[in-house]
Amino acid sequence: MKNTFGNSVAVTLFGESHGEYIGAVIDGLAPGVEINREYISHMLTLRRPEGKISTQRSEKDEFKIISGVINDLTTGTPITVLIPNENVKSGDYSQMKTIARPSHADYSAECKYHGYQDSRGGGHFSGRITAALVAAGAICKYALEKKGIHIGTHVKKCAGVSDREFCDLLWDIKSLNEKKFAVLNENTEDKMKEAILEAAEDGDSVGGILETAVVGMPSGVGEPWFDSLEGMLSHMMFSIPAVKGIEFGAGFAFADMKGSEANDPMRIAGDKVYTVTNNNGGINGGITNGMPVIFRTVIKPTPTIFKPQDTINFKTMTEEVLEAKGRHDPAIVHRARVVQDAATAIVMCDVLAARFGTDFIIVSEKKD
Amino acid sequence: MKNTFGNSVAVTLFGESHGEYIGAVIDGLAPGVEINREYISHMLTLRRPEGKISTQRSEKDEFKIISGVINDLTTGTPITVLIPNENVKSGDYSQMKTIARPSHADYSAECKYHGYQDSRGGGHFSGRITAALVAAGAICKYALEKKGIHIGTHVKKCAGVSDREFCDLLWDIKSLNEKKFAVLNENTEDKMKEAILEAAEDGDSVGGILETAVVGMPSGVGEPWFDSLEGMLSHMMFSIPAVKGIEFGAGFAFADMKGSEANDPMRIAGDKVYTVTNNNGGINGGITNGMPVIFRTVIKPTPTIFKPQDTINFKTMTEEVLEAKGRHDPAIVHRARVVQDAATAIVMCDVLAARFGTDFIIVSEKKD
Amino acid sequence: MKNTFGNSVAVTLFGESHGEYIGAVIDGLAPGVEINREYISHMLTLRRPEGKISTQRSEKDEFKIISGVINDLTTGTPITVLIPNENVKSGDYSQMKTIARPSHADYSAECKYHGYQDSRGGGHFSGRITAALVAAGAICKYALEKKGIHIGTHVKKCAGVSDREFCDLLWDIKSLNEKKFAVLNENTEDKMKEAILEAAEDGDSVGGILETAVVGMPSGVGEPWFDSLEGMLSHMMFSIPAVKGIEFGAGFAFADMKGSEANDPMRIAGDKVYTVTNNNGGINGGITNGMPVIFRTVIKPTPTIFKPQDTINFKTMTEEVLEAKGRHDPAIVHRARVVQDAATAIVMCDVLAARFGTDFIIVSEKKD
Amino acid sequence: MKNTFGNSVAVTLFGESHGEYIGAVIDGLAPGVEINREYISHMLTLRRPEGKISTQRSEKDEFKIISGVINDLTTGTPITVLIPNENVKSGDYSQMKTIARPSHADYSAECKYHGYQDSRGGGHFSGRITAALVAAGAICKYALEKKGIHIGTHVKKCAGVSDREFCDLLWDIKSLNEKKFAVLNENTEDKMKEAILEAAEDGDSVGGILETAVVGMPSGVGEPWFDSLEGMLSHMMFSIPAVKGIEFGAGFAFADMKGSEANDPMRIAGDKVYTVTNNNGGINGGITNGMPVIFRTVIKPTPTIFKPQDTINFKTMTEEVLEAKGRHDPAIVHRARVVQDAATAIVMCDVLAARFGTDFIIVSEKKD
Repeated sequence: MKNTFGNSVAVTLFGESHGEYIGAVIDGLAPGVEINREYISHMLTLRRPEGKISTQRSEKDEFKIISGVINDLTTGTPITVLIPNENVKSGDYSQMKTIARPSHADYSAECKYHGYQDSRGGGHFSGRITAALVAAGAICKYALEKKGIHIGTHVKKCAGVSDREFCDLLWDIKSLNEKKFAVLNENTEDKMKEAILEAAEDGDSVGGILETAVVGMPSGVGEPWFDSLEGMLSHMMFSIPAVKGIEFGAGFAFADMKGSEANDPMRIAGDKVYTVTNNNGGINGGITNGMPVIFRTVIKPTPTIFKPQDTINFKTMTEEVLEAKGRHDPAIVHRARVVQDAATAIVMCDVLAARFGTDFIIVSEKKD
Repeated sequence: MKNTFGNSVAVTLFGESHGEYIGAVIDGLAPGVEINREYISHMLTLRRPEGKISTQRSEKDEFKIISGVINDLTTGTPITVLIPNENVKSGDYSQMKTIARPSHADYSAECKYHGYQDSRGGGHFSGRITAALVAAGAICKYALEKKGIHIGTHVKKCAGVSDREFCDLLWDIKSLNEKKFAVLNENTEDKMKEAILEAAEDGDSVGGILETAVVGMPSGVGEPWFDSLEGMLSHMMFSIPAVKGIEFGAGFAFADMKGSEANDPMRIAGDKVYTVTNNNGGINGGITNGMPVIFRTVIKPTPTIFKPQDTINFKTMTEEVLEAKGRHDPAIVHRARVVQDAATAIVMCDVLAARFGTDFIIVSEKKD
Repeated sequence: MKNTFGNSVAVTLFGESHGEYIGAVIDGLAPGVEINREYISHMLTLRRPEGKISTQRSEKDEFKIISGVINDLTTGTPITVLIPNENVKSGDYSQMKTIARPSHADYSAECKYHGYQDSRGGGHFSGRITAALVAAGAICKYALEKKGIHIGTHVKKCAGVSDREFCDLLWDIKSLNEKKFAVLNENTEDKMKEAILEAAEDGDSVGGILETAVVGMPSGVGEPWFDSLEGMLSHMMFSIPAVKGIEFGAGFAFADMKGSEANDPMRIAGDKVYTVTNNNGGINGGITNGMPVIFRTVIKPTPTIFKPQDTINFKTMTEEVLEAKGRHDPAIVHRARVVQDAATAIVMCDVLAARFGTDFIIVSEKKD
Repeated sequence: MKNTFGNSVAVTLFGESHGEYIGAVIDGLAPGVEINREYISHMLTLRRPEGKISTQRSEKDEFKIISGVINDLTTGTPITVLIPNENVKSGDYSQMKTIARPSHADYSAECKYHGYQDSRGGGHFSGRITAALVAAGAICKYALEKKGIHIGTHVKKCAGVSDREFCDLLWDIKSLNEKKFAVLNENTEDKMKEAILEAAEDGDSVGGILETAVVGMPSGVGEPWFDSLEGMLSHMMFSIPAVKGIEFGAGFAFADMKGSEANDPMRIAGDKVYTVTNNNGGINGGITNGMPVIFRTVIKPTPTIFKPQDTINFKTMTEEVLEAKGRHDPAIVHRARVVQDAATAIVMCDVLAARFGTDFIIVSEKKD
């Protein structure tokens, strides 16, 4: 479905970097879900570039909700969020129109859209569009919190600097959700920022790893085979620009483990089943087992750098050397983190509604 | 859609480990595609357990095609493949019915299916069902080969032993597709098998990494955002039991790279654009760029081991120690490899048909 | 999705008239739903040709369920029903291969499948495939009955003879479901049969109207806009070969009504809302209102007749006169009726599961 | 998918009668398709109420396209159309909030949305939302015209007055597309309007029948079984508020026909196959046969009338007598006609893109 994701709760994304608005439509969310505008704004703030470690493009992200909400409660019909694009400098990009920026989508887009694509600021491929995804996901994330389901993401690694492991999950998640730069060990923040700045000063960029935890998901959600929860989450996460890998639980470390190390021993506490370790990241056979859902994505270094690069002009079919100008992020991993939160929330709402029906998410008291 | 995957070419999977048949329906494949039964048998043979490094359950996998094919040419309507289950020993599993095997789907399935699930041999969750996926994928893979699109997967790593890198891709792929144990460096085969056997003798199991290459995909296939080719492929790959991670191109190594190292410089050779490196694994912005599509998955160690394990009885809600019996694989990575080939072929047929229309795959000359 | 219908409960159809099996996969039906094999057989019997008013092709329709069911209870995973084709006489059709039978799909199929289609007995287009739809729908229909939702269809009109209106709905439905020839006024049966036979003796065929009632659907099920319950039901009903129209409630009679006649006055009885008339057929704004769902379809006369017909040979591109031979139905309206029941049951299970979650349909007591 | 329709070309609808904007997202339309703003405006004008035979709510329908279009050419990514709501008088409706208007969606919406629905002016159920569908469909319809596919709809019957039959189809279609009140026989216009006014003066409303013709569809488009072209078109048409029935070709008249009358004799003219009659409405076995696609829908009388009506208050659960006030249409059949054109165009783009690939619709010359 291209720009629509989900069955029971579906999100449709639209917009371009330099268009009038970007936006998202959320369809299938229960009626009566509270819309917390401050919460949405807060998540948009977390995504917004800030300081020298991000692009100097500054956006206010003043979203408006033009359908599906009355008196800050969802009606049950499609919710549309619009975010105006401001601070647009198309001039910066105009000369690049037919010169492919390496590792960007310029050339693959040309092959698909035959020159009709919007190339201003990356057009529909721009990370800018994730602001709409964040707004949509913020609505879902807030609804899940009211149901006791909490999502948090930290920068596990960036520019060679690693954060500490998750520890007390619920506490960690809540603390992350307050932070602009989401690391668990506060000492790592400055080290990462320094390393990013160092790369930036060298005209270069860095990548990193994001780790997401979801606490409170009921067991028995997901599907065997194609619509495994891993399949659904991964499908969504690869929508986030620059994500090039995803792993659940122990992930790629499984390759070097024995079954006797990898298997999660099971125990009972009161009336609740749990596992001593969580190498499976809360999912067995595509279905939640009641343990926290844990996954990591890798974010490639921002493709735009200020060093000269060998590339091509796909119109003249000549080889060129590109020297980029404009406003760019030397790292996006710290900004992508809130996109990952939002995207996770959308998938969780979808699979929960599939399992428990349309009304599952209803949070608010019936209004008069 | 649970057990159906794909939009333009869709596959539906069904069956249980100890049912009468497992099977798959392929819908949307072009008419006139040649069915090469030997090719399908060959792929089923590659999946089949053999020797001491696999389960001793032996299956002939004598598939039959009961719809959608006449005179070994597709009709364009749904193709149904059935594979009878033979050599079924349900007795081996009966005692486990309410004792969850750690890191298997037993407990999560219980939470979803409330005790109605088929627990004989893993039921619908069994790796056995992948035989049907292989048969369906074999049809797609053969059709793609006729169009010059080649898919191959090797065991990149198993039990701590690593294979060499892909080198001459087309040659490597063709050689892999002939091998029962798919490694590029033939010296690694014995080392891996030894390491697997060692684990097996210890009652343990091992995991590994599979690497897949697709050569010949036209550029401009895939979608930005949700239906990125990475999203589609990952969604599918997590259907393969035991896959817990996937990465494209440089994958998780991107975390430690600079943009200047990570970006793929672009060049022109004749009328063709190529990149000097392929860190993006042939995909930019979710869309093919004409370079080979490269991805790796991690396969967790087979959860069934013969060491005692702490677990629970979810009916009596008591803690138990499980000592497994029966036939099991100390490793499945070498068998999963052909499943990954098949699954990849299905996704590629789907995205190609979406891009170029229903008839794209037509291979055969019009029959009289 | 071509041969797959439904989101929450999905059915995939496959097979050809003269293939080895036809079949259906039902995915998403709750676990623990009782499979009543006699009930399925009964519905297959109602579809089966009998006497001189139907084709002389005789099928036993000995279905088997090869996945998704254990001890006659659904497991919650895909249920696959197979029905073997017997009594196949391909010879009867061989000469027609490139001569299009007027008002059949021969020519349109040729345009889509380029000569690769299975033309034996209509191939994938044959009404024979509806046997698989009936088997799948029978499982759904029985599950719905256990939840107090009843579906029945009568031959409202055939060969110019009209049946009486629905009256006491639940009683009428139950009586229809026992009848081989489903009319409410038993006097009409003989008249219709006579009229059908008269047409048959003349080498001709007749059409008719089917009316379906669904009692017991909860209110609040369906969607505004695209996935209106009318939209979902109509989408499904046009899958039934020969259906060329559908109308809900007053249907086409609305064209000649005033709003003051057409509107359904609302009343309250106890704690239940009802409408005095049911011109809207139980659906307002695409969503059930708690009144019975009522719709009618028109079945065109069977295209195969024994009179000479002007047609074409699409291979030689010459005009021809066709004189059909073989076994055919002078009317199918009385057989299509149970297909309509089955198709309705599938749609209702789908929309109910979407609304109330996967487990909604669970009927049986938890097994030991 | 609730508010999203289509696979290859998908449309998502959002908005409410009294919200800030209504809108639609079109996803999957080829790049390079020309956007003719006058054409869109013209279609919106045809939908707009005018004179005494429609509601006195007056809208300018000044649409804006906020994504997916540059220099009036589609980019190939999601196209979003917004239409601001103006002239909103919510006061007129406020008292009705818990009193169900008979034959409206008020009560069924209450059952689904539990009181959270937007009830101002019908909210998301309002016919107002069809303006967004018209804008989206206008883009598709214009693109189809450039490919030689023409769609037109006339008021076949309204308030007891009938229009003439289609005759010279292409000519008729072109003439209809210029008319505000779409009848083929110009004499009928005044008679229909008079009859509508007469009903209006009596505080009543009328229904009617719309007939749509599509000329130029290639043969071989559509699917057997579930995604028959009839199934797809009907699914879409029931999205149009007040549509309660649809029939293709001879439609319900088939019930009284013999096969020998109903079958369409086939002929050859040059290298083209045609049928002498078109009782099948251009579709056999769910697939186009190259003849014009013809179908009719019935539009029920506008439910809002000014006569007192028996109804209920669903909050207090008391019976009430409703005397409606406000602005309403005594007939909507003449306005719904352009919605039907638009909806048809969307479905045709979807099935054509499925058949021939993403680029099929490309119309424009490659831009510089």
